[in-house]
Amino acid sequence: MNRMATREELIRVGTEIIAQQGFNATGINAVLSKAGVPKGSFYYYFRSKEDFGLAVIEEVAKAYANQIDRFLKDDKVSPLQRIRNYLEAGMAVLGQYECTRGCLMGNLGQELASTNETFRAQLDAVFRSWKARFARCLEEAKKAGEIPQESDVDELTDFLVTGWEGASLQAKVTKSIQPMQAFVDILFGKVLKPA
Amino acid sequence: MNRMATREELIRVGTEIIAQQGFNATGINAVLSKAGVPKGSFYYYFRSKEDFGLAVIEEVAKAYANQIDRFLKDDKVSPLQRIRNYLEAGMAVLGQYECTRGCLMGNLGQELASTNETFRAQLDAVFRSWKARFARCLEEAKKAGEIPQESDVDELTDFLVTGWEGASLQAKVTKSIQPMQAFVDILFGKVLKPA
Repeated sequence: MNRMATREELIRVGTEIIAQQGFNATGINAVLSKAGVPKGSFYYYFRSKEDFGLAVIEEVAKAYANQIDRFLKDDKVSPLQRIRNYLEAGMAVLGQYECTRGCLMGNLGQELASTNETFRAQLDAVFRSWKARFARCLEEAKKAGEIPQESDVDELTDFLVTGWEGASLQAKVTKSIQPMQAFVDILFGKVLKPA
Repeated sequence: MNRMATREELIRVGTEIIAQQGFNATGINAVLSKAGVPKGSFYYYFRSKEDFGLAVIEEVAKAYANQIDRFLKDDKVSPLQRIRNYLEAGMAVLGQYECTRGCLMGNLGQELASTNETFRAQLDAVFRSWKARFARCLEEAKKAGEIPQESDVDELTDFLVTGWEGASLQAKVTKSIQPMQAFVDILFGKVLKPA
């Protein structure tokens, strides 16, 4: 493999291990050995373990953003239905993995936000870019009369992302998608509705 | 110090270090040295690092439960106001620590629920015991006419605990209590209301 392909493979394998064990507990040697890359060559691909972690966040954030766009730009259905489809697809995926996965960005936020300012700032930027996507969709929902004209879209967006992160954490702890279902039911039954 | 006092001190110090670094990254020697307890004597107090972690969860869960009870049993104010006072007090504490703390049970759930079934089950039990407390208070709110008679209290309780955990995670990542404020505003403005 060439340098870029090897780097990508290390990111792919690293993502898997970090998703299971967290960032601090992930050893560079474990990543190299699982990727079949010679020990000692890590610093040819990354400046530091932190640099590696930031590259993992960047890749994963991109994949999540594409997934969000795929649903939120689906103009065959109404803006609120797009959000609902996105959340229900996420719930189905978590169910497939018996609720052991959750959101890697949420996991890393929980693990690293208070101890590492570089990670915190990058994760904050990731969540902001997701929130911007949901905010645009909620503005469309407002235009379509699916939520009241006077809705505070930024507050609703904070609420949506926050509640969804909490629900995916609780799904892991309870080993059940029920907390996600409760969130979706109340979100669309009480919060996001015409009046 | 006698054995029990030393054990308690190890738990106290361990709670602090785990809150900052997570469980996996916490070294037994760091806990012993910070507590001024001789190296090598750890296994006199705990069977294993896991046993130690479970003891920390038990102590912290007890403290949180007392705090919840202190607010939710305050019958000088209405049931919903008790819940609101609890959430606002929590928000104020997080603000004091510049949003670096979050909820230790949420942190540990995020870190350990998918990899350690013993921890997952104990954390699940902790969240259940908290949910039972909020459910009782919401039943009182129903009797008092603060929420509709047909409300699904279990679903509302899941929603409340889930959203609050998510909000405290987002507070850490954004370094701001704004996600908690958004959750409280929408919770009491849209979800927990008479009709």
